[in-house]
Amino acid sequence: MNSTDLPKIFPDFQSAGDYVLDFLKRRIGFGLWMITRTEGDDWIILQREGDGINPNTVLRWSDSICFEMVKDNGPHVAPDISAVAAYENRPIVRQLPIKAYIGVPLTLADGRIFGTLCAIDPQRQPSEIVNETPLIKLMGAFLSTILNNELKLAEQRRLSERLKLDAHTDALTGLANRRAWDEFLSGEEDRCKRYGHSAAVFSVDLDDLKYVNDMDGHAAGDVLLQLTAEALRSATREVDMVARLGGDEFGIIAIECDQVGAELLRQRLLTNLTERGVRASVGMAMRNYLHDLTEAWTHADQNMYSLKKHR
Amino acid sequence: MNSTDLPKIFPDFQSAGDYVLDFLKRRIGFGLWMITRTEGDDWIILQREGDGINPNTVLRWSDSICFEMVKDNGPHVAPDISAVAAYENRPIVRQLPIKAYIGVPLTLADGRIFGTLCAIDPQRQPSEIVNETPLIKLMGAFLSTILNNELKLAEQRRLSERLKLDAHTDALTGLANRRAWDEFLSGEEDRCKRYGHSAAVFSVDLDDLKYVNDMDGHAAGDVLLQLTAEALRSATREVDMVARLGGDEFGIIAIECDQVGAELLRQRLLTNLTERGVRASVGMAMRNYLHDLTEAWTHADQNMYSLKKHR
Repeated sequence: MNSTDLPKIFPDFQSAGDYVLDFLKRRIGFGLWMITRTEGDDWIILQREGDGINPNTVLRWSDSICFEMVKDNGPHVAPDISAVAAYENRPIVRQLPIKAYIGVPLTLADGRIFGTLCAIDPQRQPSEIVNETPLIKLMGAFLSTILNNELKLAEQRRLSERLKLDAHTDALTGLANRRAWDEFLSGEEDRCKRYGHSAAVFSVDLDDLKYVNDMDGHAAGDVLLQLTAEALRSATREVDMVARLGGDEFGIIAIECDQVGAELLRQRLLTNLTERGVRASVGMAMRNYLHDLTEAWTHADQNMYSLKKHR
Repeated sequence: MNSTDLPKIFPDFQSAGDYVLDFLKRRIGFGLWMITRTEGDDWIILQREGDGINPNTVLRWSDSICFEMVKDNGPHVAPDISAVAAYENRPIVRQLPIKAYIGVPLTLADGRIFGTLCAIDPQRQPSEIVNETPLIKLMGAFLSTILNNELKLAEQRRLSERLKLDAHTDALTGLANRRAWDEFLSGEEDRCKRYGHSAAVFSVDLDDLKYVNDMDGHAAGDVLLQLTAEALRSATREVDMVARLGGDEFGIIAIECDQVGAELLRQRLLTNLTERGVRASVGMAMRNYLHDLTEAWTHADQNMYSLKKHR
């Protein structure tokens, strides 16, 4: 990597780290620059510039010079570690040839240490390099900031994912809700049109929910709805859309499904419902080049009502 | 500000900017360091270190040296602008005493220019300062990264807010949904207990939804539900919880409401429903030191059913 590789914006902590290691090595010298992470007493080399140690090497944190540095027991820049009591007898100094050391902590938002930005060299270094202390500390602050922004952003994205799922799920049955249904309907119609897929649309309406609610209480009604959801879900494929659209109204879109498949699915739905003691009317209509999904849904609904009247 | 002020993590773009301006001024010199923003042809001085111009000053972007710098018509570090054709005749050079210039762009994720990190001085500067070009460019990349992370985070937070609202709202009526109701119930019981508040709980159940749905179609049923929501919302206060809990089942929690207020509210609910042609049963129970909100809700539900049986 050379300095012309500087991006306008660092895409992530890792690329910022790579650049900073290269930048500091060119500017300050030192044979090996590292970004490290601590986890318990494990000390993991995440990234490095220079030779002598490989990324993902795991050393012992309590053996390191950084271990003393983060406790402020020694300076951030030590051109000659034999002049620093806390550094010169660290166990790592007996494992690796270290005569000069640089290190700053990388910090998490809650104040804990994430790891360090550090450098070692087998030779003593000129004492003027202590003048670079403000620059190195600034690099540590920048890397910590980028790291924490990345962690915060990942947390927010996870929260959004969960909320998005909540916003599209019926809390009682775990099925898709009306919002999810409406969004799926318009998205799926585009796909059907583009690829010429047919699809079957079902309207399922319970016969007894009002009666059960009024006679046995809402808890019994809730059980009926959950049994219905189970019946519909187990009759359909993972890719099909099964939604609770209102109190006792459910909708199904079976994609890439032809007339024969649709009739078989209707039978499976009725069987599954009956097995669970759920009385319901199941209307069906096909989406094809004549009728889009929204029209098919209206037809399925009409079909359901005419079947209900015959019961 | 002095260099001991360096935080472990910059809390935001502005504080990172303040620190960088101070750091570069100490290290490189130059009388005035600035972070600027462009908006159309406005050029706004957001932050500065040094004298000669105040924050929030608005100049003309197309008059500036930065305007040429971001188009790569001149170098990032110009110790003597009279040696740079694109810089020496800029209109701003006639307004301000400028003999030396430093500037790097601050970039947005979509590639547009946000503004610049720049410095000016009324005296020519030593030519060695061009050696600081990599450092200044790195500062620009760091500030751009922090700025964009902040913008991304704000966008994610707005998205979460909207999704949170969606996840807690019944799409058809705009009322709270069951998820919001359950969360409110447990939170509000804590508040009631702490402050000894009484509260009234109502269970509202439509008489005709099933009939209207089956006879006139789901669109007519939807209208009935929306009228109900309107009736309940207009009878209650902003602070009260009004939720659609199932198909034709609504719940209300009127907080800090005594028995007399609760009877008045029941009358108001019945009047509002009747005015809109909605037939419904309205059960009620009090939350007090004997019965928590969950018990009151069960009692309100039982009260609603016994009233419904008498109709």
